[in-house]
Parts: sequence; C-alpha cells; structure tokens
Amino acid sequence: MSRTTPTRMPELMSSDRSDLDTLLDKTVLAHIAFVSGDGTPALLPTMAARWGDRILVHGSTGSTWMRQIAAGIPVAVSLAVIDGIVVARSAFESSLLYSSAVLFGSFASVAAEEKEAALEVFTNRLLPGRAGEIRHPAARELAATILLAMPIGEWSLRGNNGWPDDPESASVSAVRGVR
Amino acid sequence: MSRTTPTRMPELMSSDRSDLDTLLDKTVLAHIAFVSGDGTPALLPTMAARWGDRILVHGSTGSTWMRQIAAGIPVAVSLAVIDGIVVARSAFESSLLYSSAVLFGSFASVAAEEKEAALEVFTNRLLPGRAGEIRHPAARELAATILLAMPIGEWSLRGNNGWPDDPESASVSAVRGVR
Repeated sequence: MSRTTPTRMPELMSSDRSDLDTLLDKTVLAHIAFVSGDGTPALLPTMAARWGDRILVHGSTGSTWMRQIAAGIPVAVSLAVIDGIVVARSAFESSLLYSSAVLFGSFASVAAEEKEAALEVFTNRLLPGRAGEIRHPAARELAATILLAMPIGEWSLRGNNGWPDDPESASVSAVRGVR
Repeated sequence: MSRTTPTRMPELMSSDRSDLDTLLDKTVLAHIAFVSGDGTPALLPTMAARWGDRILVHGSTGSTWMRQIAAGIPVAVSLAVIDGIVVARSAFESSLLYSSAVLFGSFASVAAEEKEAALEVFTNRLLPGRAGEIRHPAARELAATILLAMPIGEWSLRGNNGWPDDPESASVSAVRGVR
C-alpha cells in the first residue's frame, strides 16, 4: 500500500492539485522530516514557498540540517493549517477544521542561474511586490544562502471542512481563528 | 554534539521551560516525525496538548500511523508558530518572527485510569471549561481512541522576536498576523 493511500476516512482526502496549491498559498510554515545520520528521526521547521511545480526552502550555508537535506536524502514535507474548531455536543464528535498536506521526495540545489529568481519568490510570497522595491542580493548574500527545491510529485492532502454527521451532533457550531 | 545543541545563532535558543510552555500554550498543531518501517521518514500532523510535563496526542485506533507511534518508536515532535514578518531594507535581512520547539522521545499509552482526565485536557485546551459542560465519554468512545503521552525531556526551543542588527536594516518594520 502506498504511503499516500488513506486507511481511514478517505472522504477527507483530495487528489486535486488546485486544493494542494490553495493550502500551499495559505501558510509558509513547513516541517521537513528526514532520517538523521544515526538513524533517528529529525524534524526541521522552516519557511517554504511554492514556485510552480516545486517547493522551495532556504537557509544558511551554516545550517547543519539544511546541508543534510541538500544532500538529496528522502524527506517528508508537511504544510498544515488549523482554521477552527467544530464544537459538537460530545467531545468525541468535536474536531478541528484543518487542511494538511504531506509531500514526499528529496531536495536539490536550485541552479545558480535561477537562484535570484527563486529568492524573489520568497520575498514576494511574504509581501507581494516587495522584491521590486529593494536592491538585488549581493554576491556574498547569494553565496551564504542554501536554496533548495523539491518537485511536487508524491503527496497526500487531507482536510476537514465539514460537520460531523453523527445524530448526536445535530447541533454544532464552530469557533474560527484557533491556531 | 547533542541534537539539541545549536550550530548557528545560539542567541535565538532558550532552555527556559516556561518559554517552552508559552509556545505549547499558543498552538495545538504538532508534527510528529518518525522513521517508517521501510526506513523512510514519516510525518504526522496532529493536535497536541500539554498535560503537566507530558505532551498528549490522540487519534483513532484505526489510524495506522498512530499505532506505529504507540509502539514507542523514537519520535521528534515539533510545535511552531509564525507571529509576523520582519521587513528589512534588504531581502537578506528580512526574516520571520517565530517560535519553534522540537521535542525528542517516544510516546506510550496513557494508563486506562488516566484516560478520561487526559481527554478532558484536549477538550478544555480548545474551549476552556468545555469538558464540564458535556457528558462523559462513552465506553465505546474510549475504546476507539488511542491516547498517547510523551514526557517533556529532551527538547530545543528557538525563537526570533527581535530585530536584525545589520546597519542596513536600521529602518525596519514588522507585519504581524502572517500564517
């Protein structure tokens, strides 16, 4: 069985790429999981931005973890948001409104000639148009930055945007804004 | 070198447990990384709540991933929030205001006699006092729920709440509310 095949509640899954992009455009907070050199799980929270069909991450050339990921080891990357709470009449039927994607693959360095354009993706992702207002990166800044891309290939997307259908929860309400 | 020893910017680290608790009280969105049976990295986004010196997570007994974690394998658990954007005069000096913790250890099942109290922690974490307003869980609901706890032991906490000190960034501003 594939790791993107759901074992539970397949109705919460989406294989629609536009749904994935919607989530990727909602948050910049990504988590990258990988297996450390000693065989233990490692987990790196970092900013991520979509660039077409790639996920971009960046960091300092001094970052040990970024260097490990840059070596092209297998990774799992998650982006997730919580949009609210489903307040049902029982705790069991209460739940979160959420959207969550896990992407599998590996990162590779962005080619030198694409590096500045990729950095502009980060800048504009946080403040649209900002890259056009500021100076170009200095050579020393580019040299100090690890910039990695992973193709959007194998992924699973799960979301809960509805209401429980348990009769006990006929009366429900939602609180939005939880984080 | 320990996996919680920083290689870069140690001034962003905190070993203060109250700082950790502040973060754990700010978000319920956790990511659990572990090594899958086939040796690849796995990553599970889930709700987490602190209960004293333990991190609680829960899920369905039908969840393959929860069952793997329940077996006590090594995990890395992250909770992270982004609070805003530091808008500097250059892209290089721009950054995010964030707080991020990674905890290492393994989960074990919560003892049967503690299970209901632990579930109330989840309920009240989302809506304070809610557990007192609703019925107790039914036996079938308790039986259908995997409830796991990990002691808060080995962890690292990193946060950026200040401003860049580069002269180029003498004029900075922040945008809060990004997610």
